[in-house]
Amino acid sequence: MDSCVFCEIIAGTRPAEKVYEDDLFLAFLDIRPRSPGHTLVVPKKHERWVWDVEPQGKYWLLARRIARAQKKAFLTEAVWCTVIGDEVPHAHIWIYPHPATKGDRTDLAGNAQRLRQALV
Amino acid sequence: MDSCVFCEIIAGTRPAEKVYEDDLFLAFLDIRPRSPGHTLVVPKKHERWVWDVEPQGKYWLLARRIARAQKKAFLTEAVWCTVIGDEVPHAHIWIYPHPATKGDRTDLAGNAQRLRQALV
Repeated sequence: MDSCVFCEIIAGTRPAEKVYEDDLFLAFLDIRPRSPGHTLVVPKKHERWVWDVEPQGKYWLLARRIARAQKKAFLTEAVWCTVIGDEVPHAHIWIYPHPATKGDRTDLAGNAQRLRQALV
Repeated sequence: MDSCVFCEIIAGTRPAEKVYEDDLFLAFLDIRPRSPGHTLVVPKKHERWVWDVEPQGKYWLLARRIARAQKKAFLTEAVWCTVIGDEVPHAHIWIYPHPATKGDRTDLAGNAQRLRQALV
């Protein structure tokens, strides 16, 4: 899938502000963030739809881990989540703090660092 | 939580078009559907935020089961999902077919029946 931008990020041939990585999944910041720390959680194996990703339970537990790190890093109680799938045809879960959350959403490097620290 | 509308639905004192129920969770149709079969998945125990619901993995596996039933019942490939939490302060996952999905989204009784059949 060399035409898939998320596969390129996973392969390391396209830059991204990564916040978490393991054998199965990668989490990185959205380049058009709705709020500070807006993160995409994707499977490394190319899948079209979120609902086909396995192991599904593990995928969502990681999404929850990102959500909890965002609460801590950006001092927000509410973390939103969206699954659509029209834009990039590689399964992705959007996890992002409430749009009213304070901070500079365009500071991708700084926000990624805060998230990585909150994930420890 | 007698002032919580979702607790009232769970208790059976407020009507809803239910599509799935077990000891821990309930799934029922949204009364303001964005598309045919738009479903809310909620924990029976009152929780404020989706990310605090346990067991979290099981909660999302049920959401996926609803998503797959919607694909089958409403002949759509794309099923969207949203977690916000501003509206009703009882944790809920929205699972709904792509907004362009054909069907009468206001036919709650008929859509609930189609979903229940697809869940079998």
